[in-house]
Amino acid sequence: MSDLLDDPVKALTEYVSFPSVSADSSFSDGICGAREFATARMKDLGFSVETIGTPIHPVLLGTRGNPSWPRLVIYGHYDVQPPDPIDLWSSDPFAASVRNGRIYGRGAADNKGPQIVHMCALHRALKKNPDLPLHITYLIEGEEEIGSPSFRPFLEQRKDQLAGDMLLVSDTGSPGSDQLVVTTGLRGLTAMEVKLTGPKQDLHSGVHGGALRNPLQALVQICSTLHDESGKVSVEGFYDDVLEPQAWEREELNKLPTSEEEYQRFLGVPRLSPPPGFSALEAIRFSPTLEFNGLGGGYQGEGSKTVIPAEAFVKITCRLVPNQKSEDIARKVKSSIESACPDSIKVEVELKGGGDPYVVIPPGKPGSSGDESPLLNKAFPLLEDCVNNQFGTKPIYLREGGSIPIIRDLQEVAGLEALMLGLFTNEDNLHAPDESFNLKIMNRAIDSFESFFLKLGEDS
Amino acid sequence: MSDLLDDPVKALTEYVSFPSVSADSSFSDGICGAREFATARMKDLGFSVETIGTPIHPVLLGTRGNPSWPRLVIYGHYDVQPPDPIDLWSSDPFAASVRNGRIYGRGAADNKGPQIVHMCALHRALKKNPDLPLHITYLIEGEEEIGSPSFRPFLEQRKDQLAGDMLLVSDTGSPGSDQLVVTTGLRGLTAMEVKLTGPKQDLHSGVHGGALRNPLQALVQICSTLHDESGKVSVEGFYDDVLEPQAWEREELNKLPTSEEEYQRFLGVPRLSPPPGFSALEAIRFSPTLEFNGLGGGYQGEGSKTVIPAEAFVKITCRLVPNQKSEDIARKVKSSIESACPDSIKVEVELKGGGDPYVVIPPGKPGSSGDESPLLNKAFPLLEDCVNNQFGTKPIYLREGGSIPIIRDLQEVAGLEALMLGLFTNEDNLHAPDESFNLKIMNRAIDSFESFFLKLGEDS
Repeated sequence: MSDLLDDPVKALTEYVSFPSVSADSSFSDGICGAREFATARMKDLGFSVETIGTPIHPVLLGTRGNPSWPRLVIYGHYDVQPPDPIDLWSSDPFAASVRNGRIYGRGAADNKGPQIVHMCALHRALKKNPDLPLHITYLIEGEEEIGSPSFRPFLEQRKDQLAGDMLLVSDTGSPGSDQLVVTTGLRGLTAMEVKLTGPKQDLHSGVHGGALRNPLQALVQICSTLHDESGKVSVEGFYDDVLEPQAWEREELNKLPTSEEEYQRFLGVPRLSPPPGFSALEAIRFSPTLEFNGLGGGYQGEGSKTVIPAEAFVKITCRLVPNQKSEDIARKVKSSIESACPDSIKVEVELKGGGDPYVVIPPGKPGSSGDESPLLNKAFPLLEDCVNNQFGTKPIYLREGGSIPIIRDLQEVAGLEALMLGLFTNEDNLHAPDESFNLKIMNRAIDSFESFFLKLGEDS
Repeated sequence: MSDLLDDPVKALTEYVSFPSVSADSSFSDGICGAREFATARMKDLGFSVETIGTPIHPVLLGTRGNPSWPRLVIYGHYDVQPPDPIDLWSSDPFAASVRNGRIYGRGAADNKGPQIVHMCALHRALKKNPDLPLHITYLIEGEEEIGSPSFRPFLEQRKDQLAGDMLLVSDTGSPGSDQLVVTTGLRGLTAMEVKLTGPKQDLHSGVHGGALRNPLQALVQICSTLHDESGKVSVEGFYDDVLEPQAWEREELNKLPTSEEEYQRFLGVPRLSPPPGFSALEAIRFSPTLEFNGLGGGYQGEGSKTVIPAEAFVKITCRLVPNQKSEDIARKVKSSIESACPDSIKVEVELKGGGDPYVVIPPGKPGSSGDESPLLNKAFPLLEDCVNNQFGTKPIYLREGGSIPIIRDLQEVAGLEALMLGLFTNEDNLHAPDESFNLKIMNRAIDSFESFFLKLGEDS
């Protein structure tokens, strides 16, 4: 048994050294190395580990303890984003480097660092109490950065093994090392791609301009009908199922140590533009969106080319909030686009799937159903205490704008509600060059989770 | 003196063999070869030839005859479009190949074939009457396919040499080998590029969506204000200076042996979309346009990337008709775009110049001022007769949708009005793979121009 988990920086450095880029098969050695590293650490912790094949990268499933004990499931992912653009890195993305209180490397924050936090905390807790009466299932997947395509089928197949009393995740964000956030909700998603076709080939815009509708003109006309001037989505019925945020959620948000002005500076925009009735920091959590992620057609190069293009496209994603349904919104947006298209242009809307929004109401907060598992009911206030002891402030409870569809999947299929403690921050440069993880957060979080695991087991 | 001009196919084959692509400096040997070929042919015809340097590709200026004779200026260009995509050609684009009554090769129709027509016709005319009392200035440029950037400065510098009684051009189109068109007008042009900037970098559309205005959303909003539902341009004052086409112009158009249905099939669109009050074949000649030639932003690859892009762009050109002015329209469109832009987005509109529309009213048609040069007054009916004798039908007199800014420049700077006989057709695949020139049109046109030159000189 290695004692690597005695030294979090050393452990994370070794984990980062495996370039486990899931999107690119040329990194298969790195993917394999990261999987072996995670397997070895789980074995160090006394877990028995199963490697479960999928069409792309296997899932690791580690377990320890007596199945009759309270059952905790921990989620993480061993894969990372590609390092590109690699020349913008200040140091080798796969040779972790410590400077200015941070550890730099691809995956340092997303998600290898938070996994090392959980593992080191468990390591210490289990050293103190080897018979800690907590049944733990450690679930580490390898396709998170490519959208977890194999996760749902894996889940359906292994749902009995994954049944438990609660899920613990650290794959969300917090404002900084002095203020953590417990993420209580994630927006849902629905994606689609729209293709417009006009003439059978690109045409000279001088010779033929005026005879036909330019597909780009149709594109901007159609897209412009999807929002009103204020920025609200104009698709009929889009907001029908949207729930107002609860008063306590807005109050929690007031505790966020980030002002609208700071957020505007961070984004680098001339002015924030939330929809009416919301501040920007509210809008990203409580309000749904319809965003154009990519749009194009015609000449894309330098200078000019006087062409009427044959085709145009737009890629759209909507972020959804409770109780919107992914399939329902997809259908409404598709119908809105089709009816806005002039009959001189052919339109095709391809739905690309998505997932419904996720929300968990912390026990004790208004709106909580009260029928959560006893373990979950205990875990929320316990983690609040443990974090308060180490960070000097209680975590705040906030929904987040992003989507992690597997959280919703684990709820739907395995009945697990999630306690999500955010350990990375905006400064960590996720998915970008010079990704890093804040060592102060790392160390405080290990201490917090050590007490959390001990007390969660001891008192159960 | 070579007798190459006795054999038009042989002459054109040799001319095509020089890959004179002006856009790509790796073709400088081809550019040079084509220039030497054109120079040699002008010398064969008894012209003295001057090569006039420009910042890119020199202009050739050949002259023959006594300056006191009626003065004809003939325009052509020795450069061609790039051959790409080269693998879609059925034969080598620079090894001319004759099949099915056509000669295939890059530049065969645009503009080497029509030049060979003029040269062969002159060759025959001057063999019959070596002292033909016509002063001819042959002007052949090498930058037409890249927008003639050096032409206007060249013109200002040499305007005295270019002064004359009329201009002859064959660089426009006709419907087919049984019906030629004399082009009486060309649309003007104004070009601009619009750049929108939102956040300082691309943002995650889940994490930040809802807080800010997506530049792509602003782009479609702005662009959608530039046309109304019918397809008319909505920019204030856009149509202020537009002249209604004259009755005789609509009557000429009725002689065109192309129906709206045939034109729709040629374009391959579900439905034609001319602006109200115009048929499609009228609209491309008599009505101005505002076209999006290229537009884009955000993720352009396969699949999806959930991003709010930092930037978006659109490239716009307007085609203008008499009496619109390029600078005036540019100013109006720019102002319309700037005022439609929300204040949460930065907009920059870069004007890229253009040219005013050109129109010549054939002597005798209503609206003709009557003060054209005697040579021009004679040339129009004479060419009509010569074409009628060879093609069996008189040419029809039509404006064309495209723009040739140098025609307007020659009018403005050198006072030359143009007689433009179209020799290429839609089937010739200009700027595309398998460009070709119709041999029936070539031979009939040589015969027509032989009589034309002889009579234009003899009777003057």
